[in-house]
Amino acid sequence: MAEKQYENAMKALHECMEACNYCFDSCLKEDDVKMMAGCIRLDRECADMCGYLEAAISRNSPYISELASVCAKICDDCAEECAKHDHDHCQKCAEACRKCAEECRKIA
Amino acid sequence: MAEKQYENAMKALHECMEACNYCFDSCLKEDDVKMMAGCIRLDRECADMCGYLEAAISRNSPYISELASVCAKICDDCAEECAKHDHDHCQKCAEACRKCAEECRKIA
Amino acid sequence: MAEKQYENAMKALHECMEACNYCFDSCLKEDDVKMMAGCIRLDRECADMCGYLEAAISRNSPYISELASVCAKICDDCAEECAKHDHDHCQKCAEACRKCAEECRKIA
Amino acid sequence: MAEKQYENAMKALHECMEACNYCFDSCLKEDDVKMMAGCIRLDRECADMCGYLEAAISRNSPYISELASVCAKICDDCAEECAKHDHDHCQKCAEACRKCAEECRKIA
Repeated sequence: MAEKQYENAMKALHECMEACNYCFDSCLKEDDVKMMAGCIRLDRECADMCGYLEAAISRNSPYISELASVCAKICDDCAEECAKHDHDHCQKCAEACRKCAEECRKIA
Repeated sequence: MAEKQYENAMKALHECMEACNYCFDSCLKEDDVKMMAGCIRLDRECADMCGYLEAAISRNSPYISELASVCAKICDDCAEECAKHDHDHCQKCAEACRKCAEECRKIA
Repeated sequence: MAEKQYENAMKALHECMEACNYCFDSCLKEDDVKMMAGCIRLDRECADMCGYLEAAISRNSPYISELASVCAKICDDCAEECAKHDHDHCQKCAEACRKCAEECRKIA
Repeated sequence: MAEKQYENAMKALHECMEACNYCFDSCLKEDDVKMMAGCIRLDRECADMCGYLEAAISRNSPYISELASVCAKICDDCAEECAKHDHDHCQKCAEACRKCAEECRKIA
């Protein structure tokens, strides 16, 4: 329902929120949870911010640009952390974060 | 990324969140805002809860069933209120809420 | 539980979240809801962002500074809108928003 | 700003949200993160739900009772999990969760 210009961002944000939360859950089930601590923390930060921005866009918030700028930074950091780990959920999360960061920068 | 069994619910929740927030924004722009006060309130309740449940499902929360039960009730109420108004955004929101309530009951 | 340096911000954020949500509810009950449409919209934006930042501070998020900067802007705007209205809930909300904007700038 | 009847609940929810998020952050810094995985998961569930209910109460949501019932259950589970661990942050979190569960049941 959100305006055309935000369609790609909405899709990327949604996929990133899902990938980060899936990665959060999966990291907590890994054998070496300690190694995943940074990932767990950033997955939560990123999933929460993506969900927040999705909602903000859909309600036509006046602060989409400012929020997208913060979200892009969080996505970048989460992508960098996840990319360090070989787990499939981390690699997929890193990819979703990179796409999302790119879309966020377009609307920031 | 969420499990297969939640696919339909995730889709319905996302569409309902978007429809409710779009309706919230549109109601605030109507000529007769007073008539839309109940709609504005329930749109926010419903959008927030749908977004919350989407996130909970995607992180494999142990409380999906309980949250889905509350969400179904909120969707029912929002559908009933929106259905009273002829505005296109209200009619579409009512439909999204009804579908979402149904999917929530399946996972509750 | 959050670190000392954030104590004042946490208090201001919490009071602002409460004042904005109380104002949101009260505006929807006013006779002239149309006049309050801008207030209703900004009350939601501001309450949601203050709640989000409170949670971020309490989990020691690496993004407190960036989020506080956005939050300060939203608080400023909400204070300006609420200050236009004589209702007690609007005047109190404007004051809470101003205090919160100030505290947010200190941690931004 | 919320009504008198919710004052104790608001206080308990806020303290529980803070204690759970502090415990989440602290668990991620422990030597044996694997042992804390259940705690990390429930800390997030509990902090998010307490924050959600706080906001719902402050906006005079029609769903306080239903949400409080779910919140009480999450607080109970988080209290039980945290109580198993000797870390100071876990013990304090367990206590905050128990108090919050009790207050939630009063308004459910």
